Amino acid sequence: MAAYALGWSEVGGAPKPGASQGKGVRQALAVLGAEAAGAAGADRVAGVAGVAGADEAARAAGERAVPGAVAVELVHAFSLLHDDIMDGDGTRRQRPAVWKAYGTGPAVLAGDALFALAVQTLAETTPPTHTADAVRRLSTTLTGLVHGQAEDLLFERRPWTGPDAVRPDEYRAMAERKTGTLLGCAAALGALLGGAGPGTIAALDRAGRHLGVAFQAVDDLLGVWGDPAVTGKPVHGDLRQRKKTYPVLAALAALDAGDGRAGRELAALLSSPHPLDDATAAHAATLVDRAGGRAATLAEARRHLDAARTCLRGAALAPRASRELDVLLTYLLHRTA
Amino acid sequence: MAAYALGWSEVGGAPKPGASQGKGVRQALAVLGAEAAGAAGADRVAGVAGVAGADEAARAAGERAVPGAVAVELVHAFSLLHDDIMDGDGTRRQRPAVWKAYGTGPAVLAGDALFALAVQTLAETTPPTHTADAVRRLSTTLTGLVHGQAEDLLFERRPWTGPDAVRPDEYRAMAERKTGTLLGCAAALGALLGGAGPGTIAALDRAGRHLGVAFQAVDDLLGVWGDPAVTGKPVHGDLRQRKKTYPVLAALAALDAGDGRAGRELAALLSSPHPLDDATAAHAATLVDRAGGRAATLAEARRHLDAARTCLRGAALAPRASRELDVLLTYLLHRTA
Repeated sequence: MAAYALGWSEVGGAPKPGASQGKGVRQALAVLGAEAAGAAGADRVAGVAGVAGADEAARAAGERAVPGAVAVELVHAFSLLHDDIMDGDGTRRQRPAVWKAYGTGPAVLAGDALFALAVQTLAETTPPTHTADAVRRLSTTLTGLVHGQAEDLLFERRPWTGPDAVRPDEYRAMAERKTGTLLGCAAALGALLGGAGPGTIAALDRAGRHLGVAFQAVDDLLGVWGDPAVTGKPVHGDLRQRKKTYPVLAALAALDAGDGRAGRELAALLSSPHPLDDATAAHAATLVDRAGGRAATLAEARRHLDAARTCLRGAALAPRASRELDVLLTYLLHRTA
Repeated sequence: MAAYALGWSEVGGAPKPGASQGKGVRQALAVLGAEAAGAAGADRVAGVAGVAGADEAARAAGERAVPGAVAVELVHAFSLLHDDIMDGDGTRRQRPAVWKAYGTGPAVLAGDALFALAVQTLAETTPPTHTADAVRRLSTTLTGLVHGQAEDLLFERRPWTGPDAVRPDEYRAMAERKTGTLLGCAAALGALLGGAGPGTIAALDRAGRHLGVAFQAVDDLLGVWGDPAVTGKPVHGDLRQRKKTYPVLAALAALDAGDGRAGRELAALLSSPHPLDDATAAHAATLVDRAGGRAATLAEARRHLDAARTCLRGAALAPRASRELDVLLTYLLHRTA
């Protein structure tokens, strides 16, 4: 089940040809965080170490980050596995979700195993001087993830409009916990294991959190307007499932701004007890756009990517790894193009 | 959900009058392990510290064990919560299981939260010098627990007789992982946090593991012959559910010994597709007894309690806490009386 969840095998265990292993953003963040911090550290110690020396130091630091990258990826796999059970999502990356393929009970256990293995990896394969700090970071991340998922589940029960409606800033706080803490943890664990000081670790953690919020905003855009051939998800999927995502919440929050007509129609559609057919879902997407939800979400993504960049610029990072981090950020925004 | 799972509240959160918080065996093991080790350590350092000095040292060591006791209890609550989902058990301590009361998805999340909190408790409230060791122990325990639960689930699919039947020694290995590792972890964490050396920690770990196997054997006896008024479980409950427990497996393993008639009749009953009614379940219990399953399980429990005592005697423990540990062991066996 774990191999299937990680995209390494088919149901039953046969190796999967052309195994897709996700986007690798978290692993890249951990390793780049370590390289950026490690090389900068070497620089500070050795004075001008030269490009070759800095590269060598960066590579060594990046290797030290591997236990952190592995632990974070295992936590990510665990959370997808359990979240699919909670959300009743039967499909993940165009394949049956683990609980659909193997049953709910075994899927719960497979998630627990990945969770346990994440903690064990960090506890047993980090240098003793860093183990306590690393495990503390991971455990705070884990409680944050659970907190974010609980908020997300509770959002589903709240109304679309009125005083109890979910506000965009509540959604952002949830996204920071559910997506940001793990990306922040990846970058911070990398920096920690790469030998960075507390200031750099904190800056990379903050950068990762902003990145997570931006990432979620981009995901929300793709969930409504993404090309199914690229995303592997049905067109307008999030609208059909009436998911409370940033574009919709932003569109509804703007009800009282402008003439509000598109927002009011959208609220009526979403509040109706009828399933949304193709035409209605397409119309709802147009209404979200017209009510400003798409633009607000793009602005949200840009704002948090900029904030992530500002955090990185403020930290003492090696130039080359720092540039690669920047490329990673840009790639994320371009997924929307 | 967590408060409900821990027995502190009713469904919905109202405080539960006369809250039952379980038998407290794990917490007692952690604190006694620390007291036994801590007082012995003080003894060694201060020469003959006198009874008052040793008691004081024991109390202080016991207090240092609290984060370990809390973490272990949270792991225990997590595992019961998720196991009830996997096993489809709708009742726990005469109340609806968490998944029955709150739904499967929320129950999965509540278990994850308890799991995360266990790791966080140990990571954040142990002295920095002990954090890495403590977390390493807990994480090994967690993977052991998952492994044990996986074996238990797989046992359910295997036949009652023939070469693929579950052998009593396989069951014992499963019980050691599923029940023993956590009791061993409780005692060992207590000793570690109380200041014991590696030899004492290892001895308490082994003692806890044996205790776990004995505990499981006693639980299995109670599941067939226990008084429902005391156990809170239906009479012959484990037989009706056709659970593969030690008494049944031992009875079937002895098929070829003696005349084997009772064992063969038992195997036929259990292999039949019909549900076991009251009279048939009672008859099955008699057959288990007649085929030697009850005596074999009592012997198994006694053997592992003796082994636990031997481990404790071999360790350098303070006499008073050591005596209290012994009382705890005896109490466990007397649950069967």
